[in-house]
Amino acid sequence: MTSRKLWLDVDVGVDDAQGLMLALAHADTSIVGISAVHGNVDVRKVALNIARILTLCDRIDVPFHCGADEPLTAAAMDASFFHGLDGLGDVPATFPAYSDLKLAAAPGHAAVHLAHAVGEHEGELTIVATGPLTNIALACKLCEDLPSKVGRLVVMGGAEAAGNVTPTAEYNFHCDPESAQLVLRKIPQTLLVTWDCTIKHALEWSWVDAWLSKPGAKATFMRDVMAKSMAYEQQREPGVGWIACDPLAVALAVCDDALLESEPKHCVVETKGTLTRGMSVFQSPGGKAALKANVLLVKSICMARFAALLDAATD
Amino acid sequence: MTSRKLWLDVDVGVDDAQGLMLALAHADTSIVGISAVHGNVDVRKVALNIARILTLCDRIDVPFHCGADEPLTAAAMDASFFHGLDGLGDVPATFPAYSDLKLAAAPGHAAVHLAHAVGEHEGELTIVATGPLTNIALACKLCEDLPSKVGRLVVMGGAEAAGNVTPTAEYNFHCDPESAQLVLRKIPQTLLVTWDCTIKHALEWSWVDAWLSKPGAKATFMRDVMAKSMAYEQQREPGVGWIACDPLAVALAVCDDALLESEPKHCVVETKGTLTRGMSVFQSPGGKAALKANVLLVKSICMARFAALLDAATD
Amino acid sequence: MTSRKLWLDVDVGVDDAQGLMLALAHADTSIVGISAVHGNVDVRKVALNIARILTLCDRIDVPFHCGADEPLTAAAMDASFFHGLDGLGDVPATFPAYSDLKLAAAPGHAAVHLAHAVGEHEGELTIVATGPLTNIALACKLCEDLPSKVGRLVVMGGAEAAGNVTPTAEYNFHCDPESAQLVLRKIPQTLLVTWDCTIKHALEWSWVDAWLSKPGAKATFMRDVMAKSMAYEQQREPGVGWIACDPLAVALAVCDDALLESEPKHCVVETKGTLTRGMSVFQSPGGKAALKANVLLVKSICMARFAALLDAATD
Amino acid sequence: MTSRKLWLDVDVGVDDAQGLMLALAHADTSIVGISAVHGNVDVRKVALNIARILTLCDRIDVPFHCGADEPLTAAAMDASFFHGLDGLGDVPATFPAYSDLKLAAAPGHAAVHLAHAVGEHEGELTIVATGPLTNIALACKLCEDLPSKVGRLVVMGGAEAAGNVTPTAEYNFHCDPESAQLVLRKIPQTLLVTWDCTIKHALEWSWVDAWLSKPGAKATFMRDVMAKSMAYEQQREPGVGWIACDPLAVALAVCDDALLESEPKHCVVETKGTLTRGMSVFQSPGGKAALKANVLLVKSICMARFAALLDAATD
Ligand SMILES: [Ca+2]
Ligand SMILES: [Ca+2]
Ligand SMILES: [Ca+2]
Ligand SMILES: [Ca+2]
Repeated sequence: MTSRKLWLDVDVGVDDAQGLMLALAHADTSIVGISAVHGNVDVRKVALNIARILTLCDRIDVPFHCGADEPLTAAAMDASFFHGLDGLGDVPATFPAYSDLKLAAAPGHAAVHLAHAVGEHEGELTIVATGPLTNIALACKLCEDLPSKVGRLVVMGGAEAAGNVTPTAEYNFHCDPESAQLVLRKIPQTLLVTWDCTIKHALEWSWVDAWLSKPGAKATFMRDVMAKSMAYEQQREPGVGWIACDPLAVALAVCDDALLESEPKHCVVETKGTLTRGMSVFQSPGGKAALKANVLLVKSICMARFAALLDAATD
Repeated sequence: MTSRKLWLDVDVGVDDAQGLMLALAHADTSIVGISAVHGNVDVRKVALNIARILTLCDRIDVPFHCGADEPLTAAAMDASFFHGLDGLGDVPATFPAYSDLKLAAAPGHAAVHLAHAVGEHEGELTIVATGPLTNIALACKLCEDLPSKVGRLVVMGGAEAAGNVTPTAEYNFHCDPESAQLVLRKIPQTLLVTWDCTIKHALEWSWVDAWLSKPGAKATFMRDVMAKSMAYEQQREPGVGWIACDPLAVALAVCDDALLESEPKHCVVETKGTLTRGMSVFQSPGGKAALKANVLLVKSICMARFAALLDAATD
Repeated sequence: MTSRKLWLDVDVGVDDAQGLMLALAHADTSIVGISAVHGNVDVRKVALNIARILTLCDRIDVPFHCGADEPLTAAAMDASFFHGLDGLGDVPATFPAYSDLKLAAAPGHAAVHLAHAVGEHEGELTIVATGPLTNIALACKLCEDLPSKVGRLVVMGGAEAAGNVTPTAEYNFHCDPESAQLVLRKIPQTLLVTWDCTIKHALEWSWVDAWLSKPGAKATFMRDVMAKSMAYEQQREPGVGWIACDPLAVALAVCDDALLESEPKHCVVETKGTLTRGMSVFQSPGGKAALKANVLLVKSICMARFAALLDAATD
Repeated sequence: MTSRKLWLDVDVGVDDAQGLMLALAHADTSIVGISAVHGNVDVRKVALNIARILTLCDRIDVPFHCGADEPLTAAAMDASFFHGLDGLGDVPATFPAYSDLKLAAAPGHAAVHLAHAVGEHEGELTIVATGPLTNIALACKLCEDLPSKVGRLVVMGGAEAAGNVTPTAEYNFHCDPESAQLVLRKIPQTLLVTWDCTIKHALEWSWVDAWLSKPGAKATFMRDVMAKSMAYEQQREPGVGWIACDPLAVALAVCDDALLESEPKHCVVETKGTLTRGMSVFQSPGGKAALKANVLLVKSICMARFAALLDAATD
């Protein structure tokens, strides 16, 4: 059996880190490359964080690249209040400490490398994007036939009801609406994990506690980087559990059986609204306007499989 | 006991006609005036339709006025596909026939009359608006302290989930978003019946059939004017029942006990979006931004009372 | 010979005051009414300033009315830095002192009175508007056939090259772009005096000095109210002279012979631009799009006649 | 003496072809690369046209690359009415005939190659852009420090008074306003040749006639490809002469002495306006807002030098 080829586009970010570790721990997954994108923190910090995760997981062979340092046309936003100033909970001395990192991003812009990788692994590459979609949008601009060559795109982004940064918009889409709209328009084979979907598939705090209590460097690392945002979440909405956005998308990317239910939708991202900029607007495909389905909206994920995949990430 | 003073702002329209007839039949309601607004059909046709209802109900004493013939700043839209070219199902000969009407609108713009009436009945007038909010917006522009003098405003408009004319917007708000936004900003004592609320409180077809089978001119009139849109509805969504938008708002305006449950919300209308123009965006009041509640969102209406009020309308 | 019937819509303002006094001094002009609009200062202060001018000129017979206290849909702006906090140079004790004023605005909204006056003097009324166009826009909304009944509309507003409050927009249009666009769309018989036109027809400082040195209450009043803005102007652009915006429009309204040269243009006001909101965009009429001329753009005014009319204002 | 290093970004187009030939004929210019961008015609046709010019001029050594096939975020526009369906006057058999072309674009996206070249020739590369600015914008997105490494950017684009495709906008900026805005914001060392500037520096028809009457393949080629657009121009505005937009920018890029007069300006491109999308808004640098000069606006070009440079192009 051949392993699935995966590209991860991340703005690490505590939950991006969880996603990365999940993918690195998955036996049947071959990681072709990782790209850093602006978002939770500055793109240079994101690259550092990727280096930290690869060092932690002893996978310094995996190539990674710096990408977009700002949205396609929008002004950059700051989001460090949630994931910490360094994106990983502000515990710089936890192993592997920033001061000891030896790994650096490979030269060249991530979007160029991504476009190249899609061509090299035509029809076989699964891209999973858990930050603003700027790198994916740039790769589309650089390579006209990228959409037809991508195997699948799994995106964490968008909201079906209320958003998480504005009344109508989710963070990744709101941060760069032009890129989100461009990517959804260009790549119809997109599997979409929305904010609503991640709320519905939150992990119970008791599960998280057990997960973080395991021995070893990976669990220790996870416990330390999560401390800050867990405290924030438990105080904000005690009953909901840990909303693990990004690892859900990665789990669906590496394991087809994790997807229990999905719905084809026509999805467009609003770029002009005063109150609705970055909102994902969903419609049923077909109808008088003959709307095409350009996303497969994830409705239900197998929590047992997801928990197992995430558990393996800190073994 | 003194009766409630009511002003109706309508774009008749079959369901506006139902609302008008409900109000005219309600014993404890004193109708101070009726204003015609563009919407389902041209404002002149709306005025004719008001004359027709008043003639049918033998209430030619009630003053009515022509108002806005177009949105505040937006271009006018056509909506006659649903309620018929004349707004009342295209049955011109049904009693009272258009050709026999003797009643005409009183001179002067409806917004001027409305502003005057609010001043005259300070704190006592309930306005119920079941069309685009252009007249109410103009009255606000003409009379700075109108908001503080209005007793209550009941509006049929807005959508909480999907809209009925665009993926995000309900007809009355989409037709004149600038007026909707202005009115909600100026008049915080607004009771809002959204499109979602009206779907939730649809009338069963069996009830409608019985209602239309009564003897007498009013039931005959209602049966004839509803024929076209009923056929459309029954074919489009057979299981839902008759979505009686406007009479729900009128029922709440004349009868406090019809309101079972409501929720204070901060509501703003998007005017700039490409896909979201006319969308009503709801947020919880309070929070960091100290948002004020400017609408009372109707969640539950007593269907027994509503059915009784509507039933009386054709007696 | 019958005198010309005139309505003045003003946001007094030093130069609006000059325009008012010019009109009041003109023998062949019958002033039907004056309306106050928000702009240079709050509409209530504008009404006070109208009362002050009428008292000064001993014309307390002229009816005046309070109008719009804010733009049609836009948020209000503050412009008191130029004309003073009271709009008339902050010299409250100069005769007639604010504290001695006995005159008050007639009840009812100015737009209602204006719409009524247009109907009463069908085809004969010249409206001159020297503030934001909110009152004229509201009058158009209240009276569908107002445009066909207005004799002529003379507007001070718009810019052909650079604006005076933004790189592209003139104050009156920028203050309420929606009203400006609506009025130009509805009333094609508009004579337009732009910011560029007023620069081209500035009065030399030597002329102004002589004008203000005349004896009498009117010249004294003018000298006092102009002191502040003259100092500002002489320091900002010493060589240009006094840019007398509003009285130019009034002079053209009362005296046809003052207009030497004009050009028919298609003019649209931009309402959506980030940098260009309120910009007046001019095009040649005709062409493939068959554009209609909706303004007569003033290119040249007889300065001798203008100076004579203005001189008479302080006699 | 060392020659100037030049990169040409073109949407050939008859006048782009003139610019290319001017640069190829200039002794002291070393052409580092040429990039094709969408615009007058499809980017693939533009690449073919570059191949044709290089073949005509016997310079098949010069590397060229395909770039953006559409604007950054906007929808593509069609402009083939002016320069012909193939961009070069629809004379496919004129030497070198399309059917005989052997040259092809080098692989890889033009923006990647451009970013690489800027780094390799740090501080020394002059970029001249005579089409929509999409490639330059993408190169900026791919290489954060590109702006600081570019020697100079010469752009044909923007308008000071009226535009040439809308009342306010010039073609290259209107075609991709987001890219134009991004490039002017990122690269302050931009020399700007506007539509107004090109009108002011049109070539007299008598000069053009003489130029096209020379013997040889280059003059024959130029005569044939210009035939269609010359006829269009002579009929549209007989007195103006040939408005040679693009070669003016190229002339300024290769010859410093051709620039007689320029003015530093703060220039922003409007992206949101209904009537003003793509408009270049100019302001004086400095002032209260401390605006920075980001363009050097070309006011006067030496026509003798320009004519000499252009003449050499067909020798
Ligand atoms: Ca993320
Ligand atoms: Ca209605
Ligand atoms: Ca004024
Ligand atoms: Ca070109």
